[in-house]
Amino acid sequence: MEIIKNVRQKMPLVHCITNYVTVNDVANIVLACGASPIMSDDKKDVEDITSICNGLCINIGTLNARTIKSMFIAGKKAQSLNHVLVLDPVGAGASRLRTRTAVKLMKKIHFDVIRGNISEIKTLAGKSGMTKGVDADSSDEVNEKNLEATVEWLKDFSRKTGSIIAVTGKIDFVTDGQKCFVIRNGDALMKSITGTGCQLSALLTAFVCAGKENSLEAAAMAVCVMGLAGEIAKTHLAEYEGNATYAKRIIDAVNNMTDEELEDGAKYEVR
Amino acid sequence: MEIIKNVRQKMPLVHCITNYVTVNDVANIVLACGASPIMSDDKKDVEDITSICNGLCINIGTLNARTIKSMFIAGKKAQSLNHVLVLDPVGAGASRLRTRTAVKLMKKIHFDVIRGNISEIKTLAGKSGMTKGVDADSSDEVNEKNLEATVEWLKDFSRKTGSIIAVTGKIDFVTDGQKCFVIRNGDALMKSITGTGCQLSALLTAFVCAGKENSLEAAAMAVCVMGLAGEIAKTHLAEYEGNATYAKRIIDAVNNMTDEELEDGAKYEVR
Amino acid sequence: MEIIKNVRQKMPLVHCITNYVTVNDVANIVLACGASPIMSDDKKDVEDITSICNGLCINIGTLNARTIKSMFIAGKKAQSLNHVLVLDPVGAGASRLRTRTAVKLMKKIHFDVIRGNISEIKTLAGKSGMTKGVDADSSDEVNEKNLEATVEWLKDFSRKTGSIIAVTGKIDFVTDGQKCFVIRNGDALMKSITGTGCQLSALLTAFVCAGKENSLEAAAMAVCVMGLAGEIAKTHLAEYEGNATYAKRIIDAVNNMTDEELEDGAKYEVR
Repeated sequence: MEIIKNVRQKMPLVHCITNYVTVNDVANIVLACGASPIMSDDKKDVEDITSICNGLCINIGTLNARTIKSMFIAGKKAQSLNHVLVLDPVGAGASRLRTRTAVKLMKKIHFDVIRGNISEIKTLAGKSGMTKGVDADSSDEVNEKNLEATVEWLKDFSRKTGSIIAVTGKIDFVTDGQKCFVIRNGDALMKSITGTGCQLSALLTAFVCAGKENSLEAAAMAVCVMGLAGEIAKTHLAEYEGNATYAKRIIDAVNNMTDEELEDGAKYEVR
Repeated sequence: MEIIKNVRQKMPLVHCITNYVTVNDVANIVLACGASPIMSDDKKDVEDITSICNGLCINIGTLNARTIKSMFIAGKKAQSLNHVLVLDPVGAGASRLRTRTAVKLMKKIHFDVIRGNISEIKTLAGKSGMTKGVDADSSDEVNEKNLEATVEWLKDFSRKTGSIIAVTGKIDFVTDGQKCFVIRNGDALMKSITGTGCQLSALLTAFVCAGKENSLEAAAMAVCVMGLAGEIAKTHLAEYEGNATYAKRIIDAVNNMTDEELEDGAKYEVR
Repeated sequence: MEIIKNVRQKMPLVHCITNYVTVNDVANIVLACGASPIMSDDKKDVEDITSICNGLCINIGTLNARTIKSMFIAGKKAQSLNHVLVLDPVGAGASRLRTRTAVKLMKKIHFDVIRGNISEIKTLAGKSGMTKGVDADSSDEVNEKNLEATVEWLKDFSRKTGSIIAVTGKIDFVTDGQKCFVIRNGDALMKSITGTGCQLSALLTAFVCAGKENSLEAAAMAVCVMGLAGEIAKTHLAEYEGNATYAKRIIDAVNNMTDEELEDGAKYEVR
């Protein structure tokens, strides 16, 4: 497995239209894995910028009327160029604007991957997810009991959309409609920092750009990298350090990660 | 005293319309104390988002025509729902737009708490504060000599506005017009990082959301937590570390803080 | 040499119209060197804000129709007040909007310093730079072979624009058309974090504000400080730390830097 090495050799350029809350960490995690980020969200800028990139990651975390337009313009251009397209529907289910925007983006643009928490993905699949702000609601939580059923409706949703669906939480899922990676990496402390989801969506875009011939595995390995980085970062945390330092160390861990570490540390099964 | 435990149990959702300079630290400090942040500033998004939250923190640090509208829309909605409302008038006194916007927000919306530096609060109280950019001017500095007089006019301003007034600086003040907490936590190094004020305003919103029955104490304890976190973070700073690492360690310290630590470390008197 | 001491004594206020990707690090590095940052980008706010400042740093990293207007308004006001003006043409060459905006800003406003990577500066000098997103293209790389020629066209471009031109990369150049500082500080790891360029532009604005009587040396020393901070930060990096922690430690190193360290560590020649 030379997934990470491959990203570092190909150094894909990733255009991010993303929220201003987590944008700095998003840029640094893209750099950490060996790719390059470019942020641009003006309607007159996005076509040129996305044209020189390999992939586009659209994150609706702090969407507004101006940037929504740019998302459609950039998305259509990226699609016409056969670039990798990833959607992060932050807060779908929490407001009508977010839900509507995500749904409309999915209608007008074909995404290679859609990544969200379970409540956001439930919302988009028409299963009335109980998004609690930008976090999944505990009533939507996936556990060992409903795991099999979750895998099934995610596969179904993936077939309907033609997109790889990635759901992250205590247990992560990445499916292309046929196979589903069920991933058990990560650490509970990751919930106490902002932006691990946003970061993962951009990281995943870079991985899929570099591994287009096997998008499902590339996306699943990006999810493993993020979770494993959370585990590694935890081991280096001093007693007096907390969530803010932890956030930086997760990016550090991605920066230092090798394919050997990934192979040893990735905890997944394919269903 | 179970102030922090209370926040961690209630896990309030805090809607922040805030500046893009310090937004990531604001999100992480809200998470650090056990609450959840949501950032949203589009006029079509803010009503839905604020409706699912417990409180709204409006910070005018990088205000613009578009987001000013959203502040009023969100503020009115939050008020109609009896949510906790906090205003951080960043840079009031430094520009006419900032002063006007803060004054108009205070007219149209009732804030539970208004938190600023001494120059910003002087400006809003019509006492011609000498805001030096986003920092208080040294000519406005509160010292032992003018402390008593400061407490008096702050109480007066609190009674006039019906808002708890929180002023932070070398000495901090939190008053509801009757009682005034005079707080002496904090470290001089906090002045060398951006965003401690913004972070405190959001932290304070979370504390008041969780402790509505005693807003004054909740607000005052949030101020103590921030200052104490600055003191604790300082003790762990290596010789080669400086303001940027310090900024993260302050959030870490909030993340690790217990009510026992707060009780031992809070340095205040009530006047 | 008392360059840093001078900044810390004069504590200049720097108005930044800058991108939201790196804005927090920009604010903290300005504070780290002893100056104060203010971010403001609304057309109705920027004139008041820039008036109370000593310098203005315009960074087009996430430009949009709204903020482009503000850049011109702020720039003209700052110029009329004889303030220090610095341009960071992020991504010039990567999109027509960026190139056009940078060129137009240079036409309408006189900048004391223009700082970019070699591809951005080549683009502005009409030499068809091959900007790879927001990074310089490897085909534009300066090495020992083309160094002399590079110094010559940079001097020429500086004379034509009347601006100090600062180009950063493996080797850095700072020229006023007569003299050119060729600087060899820095560490390769700096390429793996976002925003060192943006941070340097703001740091440089602070240095020139404090050292207007010798702008060239002030600008060159800011470049040395940034590179040296990158070297110092590297020496303190634990094996498990990576690019994200490194980013903070660079700012820390600026915060702790003394003129003695700078004098010992600055590696430059004047051509």
